[in-house]
Amino acid sequence: GFPGIPGRKGEPGESAYVYRSAFSVGLETRSTVPNVPIRFTKIFYNQQNHYDSTTGKFHCNIPGLYYFSYHITVYLQDVKVSLYKRDKAVLFTYDKYQDKNVDQASGSVLLHLEKGEEVWLQVYGDGENNGVYADNINDSTFTGFLLYHDTE
Amino acid sequence: GFPGIPGRKGEPGESAYVYRSAFSVGLETRSTVPNVPIRFTKIFYNQQNHYDSTTGKFHCNIPGLYYFSYHITVYLQDVKVSLYKRDKAVLFTYDKYQDKNVDQASGSVLLHLEKGEEVWLQVYGDGENNGVYADNINDSTFTGFLLYHDTE
Amino acid sequence: GFPGIPGRKGEPGESAYVYRSAFSVGLETRSTVPNVPIRFTKIFYNQQNHYDSTTGKFHCNIPGLYYFSYHITVYLQDVKVSLYKRDKAVLFTYDKYQDKNVDQASGSVLLHLEKGEEVWLQVYGDGENNGVYADNINDSTFTGFLLYHDTE
Ligand SMILES: [Ca+2]
Ligand SMILES: [Ca+2]
Ligand SMILES: [Ca+2]
Repeated sequence: GFPGIPGRKGEPGESAYVYRSAFSVGLETRSTVPNVPIRFTKIFYNQQNHYDSTTGKFHCNIPGLYYFSYHITVYLQDVKVSLYKRDKAVLFTYDKYQDKNVDQASGSVLLHLEKGEEVWLQVYGDGENNGVYADNINDSTFTGFLLYHDTE
Repeated sequence: GFPGIPGRKGEPGESAYVYRSAFSVGLETRSTVPNVPIRFTKIFYNQQNHYDSTTGKFHCNIPGLYYFSYHITVYLQDVKVSLYKRDKAVLFTYDKYQDKNVDQASGSVLLHLEKGEEVWLQVYGDGENNGVYADNINDSTFTGFLLYHDTE
Repeated sequence: GFPGIPGRKGEPGESAYVYRSAFSVGLETRSTVPNVPIRFTKIFYNQQNHYDSTTGKFHCNIPGLYYFSYHITVYLQDVKVSLYKRDKAVLFTYDKYQDKNVDQASGSVLLHLEKGEEVWLQVYGDGENNGVYADNINDSTFTGFLLYHDTE
């Protein structure tokens, strides 16, 4: 007999668009608790909900390389903050407060994350380093996004 | 009879390459006008011309998630700057000037933009907060780029 | 005859996956040499090895648009740092040190690079501007990544 009709067209190739993970959040009031994650509850962007505003932690759902940045308003006390990854401080930012001054401190870094790893900001040292300030016209912010997802 | 010939190969996966929008600009001289967009006219990158140096505004041509960052040299006066989106200040950065000091203040954030929305930097408050400084060896800069474009 | 088997799956979308270049590094001890590239030797990420910790220079292997950012702890002296591209200072950051203070200074910019071009951070001016500080709980960092690679 005759050959059959041609087969169906193949599947489309892979697209990068499903690999998205990003958050950008701010502090609503002055943070006063040391040695726990800073809870940023003003949400600029958190569409995938990989950042949890009840814990202050970003949870990695897509393994890959992430960019994190933060900007802190330094007021009333010194600021010592660390970016934590899995209970380990990996980046340290210190800005000393001086009487009647207001300063800005910031940090950014690229970190490779495995699925399930968490990243957050936390004040380190004793209780004297808790000058992370914010009110309705002064922001302190924390942002992260997936830059390159892992490939096989 | 024989089976038909295999079907045609599938379409390539969608490519992100047409979705590009980025600018990076600096201030050439001290900015002295409050309550209007800061006009950055030193161009580091503006290939798509989505930033307009005559107005100081970035114009969104591709809906999606954008990263914005700015770095301000604080000199001679306090600095209070806001990142505006559609006539609304969404991010506030304050750095207090002290006599004979020079400081650096910075901010960054992820914002989702619809086509046509504009984003810019502006001094807020009264005229006493206009210490945004720049000269030929001191930069104050404003940068933005499309991170993830919207999909259907 | 019977219909043919379905066609092969399409090729992956022209994918950005091979176009990856990123580094994120920190200073391990106070930098004391002016007028040469600052050598950051604490490696947060450098998988492609496009950053050379023996020279302090990032070497462009993939032509395209890159984002660079740095965050400097200002201590003991003023800080004047420039981001260099091909022996030319393109971005200038100045933060004045005051007695008993600690400040943070930062910068970021988008730069288009051709293959072979190098980018690094360097203290400029005389030897009095070398307050770029770091120790094991105070970071000064330098980060860069390919945002959009060049297309034909
Ligand atoms: Ca200040
Ligand atoms: Ca200073
Ligand atoms: Ca300070």
